[in-house]
Amino acid sequence: MKLVAEIFSQGEELVGGQIVDTNAAWLSGQLLELGFRVSRHTAVGDDLAALTALFSEIAGRADCCICTGGLGPTLDDLTAEAVSLATGLSLEFDLQAWEQIQSYFGCRSRPTPASNRKQALLPATALRIDNPVGTAPGFALCYQRCWFVFLPGVPAEMQAMYLTSIKPLLMARFVLEPDCLVTFKSIGIGESAIQQALHDLQLPAEVQLGFRAGINEVQTKLLFPAGFAEPVKQALIAQTAALIGDYVFAIDGVDGIQGDLLDVIDRQMQHHRYSLAVLETLTQGLLSSQCLGKSWLRSADIAVDLPRLVEKWQIVLDAEHLEAAATELAGMMHRCYHTDLVLVQLYVGPENHFQDRRQAVVLYNALYDGETVMTAQHRVAGTPQQKQNQATQLTLDLLRRFLQNRCP
Amino acid sequence: MKLVAEIFSQGEELVGGQIVDTNAAWLSGQLLELGFRVSRHTAVGDDLAALTALFSEIAGRADCCICTGGLGPTLDDLTAEAVSLATGLSLEFDLQAWEQIQSYFGCRSRPTPASNRKQALLPATALRIDNPVGTAPGFALCYQRCWFVFLPGVPAEMQAMYLTSIKPLLMARFVLEPDCLVTFKSIGIGESAIQQALHDLQLPAEVQLGFRAGINEVQTKLLFPAGFAEPVKQALIAQTAALIGDYVFAIDGVDGIQGDLLDVIDRQMQHHRYSLAVLETLTQGLLSSQCLGKSWLRSADIAVDLPRLVEKWQIVLDAEHLEAAATELAGMMHRCYHTDLVLVQLYVGPENHFQDRRQAVVLYNALYDGETVMTAQHRVAGTPQQKQNQATQLTLDLLRRFLQNRCP
Repeated sequence: MKLVAEIFSQGEELVGGQIVDTNAAWLSGQLLELGFRVSRHTAVGDDLAALTALFSEIAGRADCCICTGGLGPTLDDLTAEAVSLATGLSLEFDLQAWEQIQSYFGCRSRPTPASNRKQALLPATALRIDNPVGTAPGFALCYQRCWFVFLPGVPAEMQAMYLTSIKPLLMARFVLEPDCLVTFKSIGIGESAIQQALHDLQLPAEVQLGFRAGINEVQTKLLFPAGFAEPVKQALIAQTAALIGDYVFAIDGVDGIQGDLLDVIDRQMQHHRYSLAVLETLTQGLLSSQCLGKSWLRSADIAVDLPRLVEKWQIVLDAEHLEAAATELAGMMHRCYHTDLVLVQLYVGPENHFQDRRQAVVLYNALYDGETVMTAQHRVAGTPQQKQNQATQLTLDLLRRFLQNRCP
Repeated sequence: MKLVAEIFSQGEELVGGQIVDTNAAWLSGQLLELGFRVSRHTAVGDDLAALTALFSEIAGRADCCICTGGLGPTLDDLTAEAVSLATGLSLEFDLQAWEQIQSYFGCRSRPTPASNRKQALLPATALRIDNPVGTAPGFALCYQRCWFVFLPGVPAEMQAMYLTSIKPLLMARFVLEPDCLVTFKSIGIGESAIQQALHDLQLPAEVQLGFRAGINEVQTKLLFPAGFAEPVKQALIAQTAALIGDYVFAIDGVDGIQGDLLDVIDRQMQHHRYSLAVLETLTQGLLSSQCLGKSWLRSADIAVDLPRLVEKWQIVLDAEHLEAAATELAGMMHRCYHTDLVLVQLYVGPENHFQDRRQAVVLYNALYDGETVMTAQHRVAGTPQQKQNQATQLTLDLLRRFLQNRCP
C-alpha cells in the first residue's frame, strides 16, 4: 500500500476565486513522483475555526500533508495560530527566523516592518524551514498520524523551499517505492499526432501512458511501476522516443531532469562556446527576455514594425521571398555582430491575421552559422499572446535542432 | 449570515497533479458575485468510498455545492453511483438524457458508443441539467441541508451549463445579497508598508480589509457588505486611496474593472495618441514583449550588455553618473526615433550582483517627453527573473505616473 498524502491550501483569494491554486497540482506531481498516493486537495479561506478543524481531520487520515499559504505578516495569515489551536503547541519566538527576516529587508535597504515579527512565531517543537527567497519561514511538525509541512503560498518561494528542504526530508523520513515516470518533451507536434505516432506501441498493462499539453511543450508520459524490469523499460523508452521522432528535445526520468528547451540549448551553447545574435519580429522581445543571464546571447534586435525593418535592411518581405529575406538578413547581421550564430525570425500575414485568434500567420526562422543557413517554416495560430509564445518556442527550437544535429 | 457554498472537483488527474483545477476558481468567483460565501474547495480522485463520504460531509455543512467531473462514460466516472450510495436514491434511466446523448453523436455522424448509456442514469428525483456543448448531462438534487449541482469537468461545458442553467436556478432558489469588493492595485510599495500606511484608517467592523501580493502588483481589498451606506463607502475608498498614495495605479470595483498596469497605460497612450520608444537593459526585452500589439510602441532597443551600450552611445555609466547618462540617452533616442515619449532603463551594480538573489542592483528609469526628463530610482532584488519582472513593472510605472500626473 502506498503512503497517503494530502495537499492543503489556505487563502481567501483561493476560495474567493481570485487566483487559481497551481500549488496543489505542482505539489501533487512532486509527491506522486516520490511514491505517495495523493488522496485529496482542500482549500479554505482565512477562517480560524475551519483551519483548526481541518488540521485535525487530516491528522487522522493522511501520512503527510503539505500546506501552503497563510504564513504572511498580516492579520489574515492564520496558519501558525490554527496549528497551535489544533495541536495545543504554544507559539514561540524563533530568533534565527527573525534574523533571516531582518536580513531580507536589510539587503533591500528597507527597515523591517514591526508586523513581520509575527512570521518568526513558530509552534514549539516545530522544525523551521528556511526561506531563501522571501520573508516567511516555513515549518514542519508531527500531529497524530500525519507529518505536516507548512510553506508560503507564493509559488516561487514554495517551490524553492520544497525542492531544497522538503523533498530531502520526505525521502529521509518515509520509506517510499516510487514509480518511475519518464517524460518525453516535444515541440512542434500536437497531442493527437503523437497519439497516432504511438498507435503500434505495445505497452504491458501495468505501464501507464499519458499526455499533457502545456503552453510551451507537449509531454508524453510513461509510468512504470516500482520494480519493473529495467531492460524492457529501456527498450520501451527507446521505441517511444523513436516513434515521436526529433520533435523530442528532452527526456526526463532516465538521466535525471533535462529541463526545458532553453536549458537544453544553454548546455550546448556553453559546451561549444558559441555566441548568438538574434532578430525578433513577431515575438517582440520575449525570446531575448527568456535568455536573461545567458552570456552567449551577445546581441538582440527587435523589429516592432515590419515596414521599418524592410526599409532599414532593404529587403523584400512577402510570402514569396521569405527564404531570401531571412538568408540575406542573417548574412548582414553576421557581418554586423560577428557572432558564431545568427537567428532570424520573420513572419508574414496581414496585421489583422496576427490580432485575430482564428487566423494563422506564417512564421519563418533562419539560423546562419557563417557558412550555411538552416530554415524552418511554421503556421502559428491563436491569440496574439499564444502566437508570441508558440513563435518563441519554435524559433528557439530551430537553434536546438541545429545544436543537436550538427554537434552531437 | 451569508449562505455557504462549497466547490467539489472529482478526478484522478487533479489529485495526480496532471491538470490544474481552474474550475474551482471560476465557480468561486461566480458564486461570490452572487452573494454566497465560498468556504471550501475539495478535490478527490476516482475513489467511490472517498466520494460517498465527502458528499455526506458536505451535505451537513453547506447550503449549496457545485461538483465538477466524474460524469463521463468510462468506468472511472463514479459520481452518479457515489451520489446514489450516499443519498440512498436509486439510479434511473432518463430517456430524454439518452435521446440528447444520441443526438450529439448523430449530428456528428458517429454511432453512439454503448458505454455512453451510463451517462443517462440519474439519481431518482434529480433535476436533469441539459448539456448544450457535450455528451454528459448534469443534474441537481437536495441532500440534507445542501443543494448539490453536478456538472461535467470540461471547462467549456461546465461554464456554458453554469451560465445558462445553474446561475438562474441559484438566483431563483436562494435569497442572496452580494457584497461589494473594492481592490486598490499598487506598484512599488510592499504589503507591510501599505498596512502601516493604513494604520490610522478607521474601518467599521463589518468592512473587511485584505491584502494580496502578486508577482506584478500588490492588491489592497475592502469588502463592503450588501446594503452598506454608499456615502460612507465612497469616503472610505477615497481615504484608503489617499493613504496608500500614488503607488495606486487602478481601483477595481468602483467603475468596473480597470485591468492591470499595462491596460491603464494603454488607455492613456491611445487617448493622447502618444508614441513611445524604449531602451531596455536589465529586462532584456520583457517590457517590449508585454507591449505586444500596442501600436504606440514604435521602437524597442535591447542592450544585453552594458559595456557595449556605453561604447555605442558614448556615455559614462556608473552609480555617480546614472542621472546624466539616462538624460543624455533619452535625448539621443528622441532625436533618433522622433517619438513623443522616450523611456530609458539603466542599472548599475556588478554583474555578480545581478545573478545573486541576495544582492540588489540599482535600477534607474528616465522618461523624456521632448522637454523635460522625469526620473525614478529603485533597488531591485531577488533571482535574476524576479529582478527582471520587478524592473519591467517599475519602468512601466514611471510611464504610468507621467501619464496620470501630466495628463489628467
